[in-house]
Amino acid sequence: MRRTIDWADGAIVIIDQTALPAEYRLLELRTVGELVDAIKRLAVRGAPALGAAGALGVALAARLGGDVRADAELVAQARPTAVNLAWGVERALAKLPEGADAVLAEAQALLTEDERLNKTASAHAAEIVLAECPRRPLRLLSHCNAGHLATVGWGSALGVVWHLHERGLVEEVLVDETRPLLQGARLTAWELAQAKVPYRVQPDGAAAAAMARGLVDCVLVGADRIAANGDVANKIGTYGLAIAAKHHGVPFVVVAPSSTVDRRLADGTGIAIEERDARELTEYAGVLLTPPDARVFNPAFDVTPSALITAVVTEHGRFTS
Amino acid sequence: MRRTIDWADGAIVIIDQTALPAEYRLLELRTVGELVDAIKRLAVRGAPALGAAGALGVALAARLGGDVRADAELVAQARPTAVNLAWGVERALAKLPEGADAVLAEAQALLTEDERLNKTASAHAAEIVLAECPRRPLRLLSHCNAGHLATVGWGSALGVVWHLHERGLVEEVLVDETRPLLQGARLTAWELAQAKVPYRVQPDGAAAAAMARGLVDCVLVGADRIAANGDVANKIGTYGLAIAAKHHGVPFVVVAPSSTVDRRLADGTGIAIEERDARELTEYAGVLLTPPDARVFNPAFDVTPSALITAVVTEHGRFTS
Repeated sequence: MRRTIDWADGAIVIIDQTALPAEYRLLELRTVGELVDAIKRLAVRGAPALGAAGALGVALAARLGGDVRADAELVAQARPTAVNLAWGVERALAKLPEGADAVLAEAQALLTEDERLNKTASAHAAEIVLAECPRRPLRLLSHCNAGHLATVGWGSALGVVWHLHERGLVEEVLVDETRPLLQGARLTAWELAQAKVPYRVQPDGAAAAAMARGLVDCVLVGADRIAANGDVANKIGTYGLAIAAKHHGVPFVVVAPSSTVDRRLADGTGIAIEERDARELTEYAGVLLTPPDARVFNPAFDVTPSALITAVVTEHGRFTS
Repeated sequence: MRRTIDWADGAIVIIDQTALPAEYRLLELRTVGELVDAIKRLAVRGAPALGAAGALGVALAARLGGDVRADAELVAQARPTAVNLAWGVERALAKLPEGADAVLAEAQALLTEDERLNKTASAHAAEIVLAECPRRPLRLLSHCNAGHLATVGWGSALGVVWHLHERGLVEEVLVDETRPLLQGARLTAWELAQAKVPYRVQPDGAAAAAMARGLVDCVLVGADRIAANGDVANKIGTYGLAIAAKHHGVPFVVVAPSSTVDRRLADGTGIAIEERDARELTEYAGVLLTPPDARVFNPAFDVTPSALITAVVTEHGRFTS
């Protein structure tokens, strides 16, 4: 599969994640405004992929000229929760004094590194899963999308599935559909179908029942920000899933590159949680799902305390606070 | 508001719950086949309303002639989990030797009784909520629809909201949208809007985060079947919600008429759980939400053990096993 986000012919090229699974479509982003819009619309999403978007955004701004630092700030602020976005921006911006080519080279290095680090992190996590879960083959549960499409390539939590599937150790992945934007149903299911890994999509509310029925050996999720004490911000629904996993004694493993760790935050209480548009809940495909004036509670993320997590795993192995 | 299900001019008249909130539409069901179809499509749903549907179905069959007992069996088997459906059928069928008019009179008595019992059960539950939750006004969390539309009238879990709202004690109801069929977003939100009770719709996955933020004083749900030991089958997602409520020390109250209790079942492990059509998860409004051949895990209900429940409340007050 091609990279989720890449640089080609003076443009940022992304797989448009709003069009999947119905259509596999590439978008060329030629201005900083187009990139910011794509990030806000979640055409590109996932913390590691946002790190790449941040770096490439600065490379694009540097190439186009203008106020590169102001443009970089626009990119960094496009979404508030994933620390990787600002991290990617800062890393590329550090090369600005050396010129636009140096910025682009740094961004491209970051992309290559992202694939490598996710592959390493998920390999470490696969070993931890095998150590924690005696049953073979494994029944895994995944929330949101922490796969190829959430990164430059390979994936974090789904990367674990790829490693285990290569070894013939995966019986099934239960895929939380992940309302409101259905990243599980749309993106994770699509990746699993491409890779011919058996899966079933379930409503988010069915996860606890699946655990009670003994259908889940391990829960695997990614992360949007990790505090110094190991608290994890991730897609809304992750926290309830972690509580249910703890209740059933099911291991709960978080996989992310270390760029997701924000050591400046002592714990998860300091993580800014983005509230998203009401229309994500009030309509679908032009059909009204609620009364016309319905108010909503629509936080994009929640925070899972480290006490509920079996292991947070990065390219360095098990994260320790 | 008119009754959710009633008898008029030789037909069963229901509010079509598949059309709400976009359209308020009545359906006249003039054959047993039409009734069975309406039950299977969830045009009429909710355990107490299904009890009424069962009784009225027998009244309709008796009036039309033919093999009434065979027709009654078709109605009773239309959905497997709600015990009320078979209970309503049996109750009306007991009057068959006395003729079609006696069957109809029994069914109509059951309808009147349903409204009265739900009003009483929810009044008992309101007192329990007030005793368990010191904060005023109250922030309540609701899953699926256990309101007027789930019963002949008034409602069970939402009936508690009506009682408390009449006394000015409700600040807000957080409404789980309740995937896959969105009974919360579509039906509960509609009822709350009609009654001018402040509410917000949330993704099912946001409930635990809402509890962690201290936004929930009490969870209120209905029931589709209650075992002798107090285990409760209810809409998928209820069990995870109960685990999260326990984790946060939030009271979890179940409200249902005693016709929902199935004393023949020692505990919840014996409750048949209906698996519903994959298309509930794979498409919406004609749009494909998953890869075309996606398999699903789509149980309509889950079972919450009594240990996670603060109180099961019927018209007799707190249920004790």
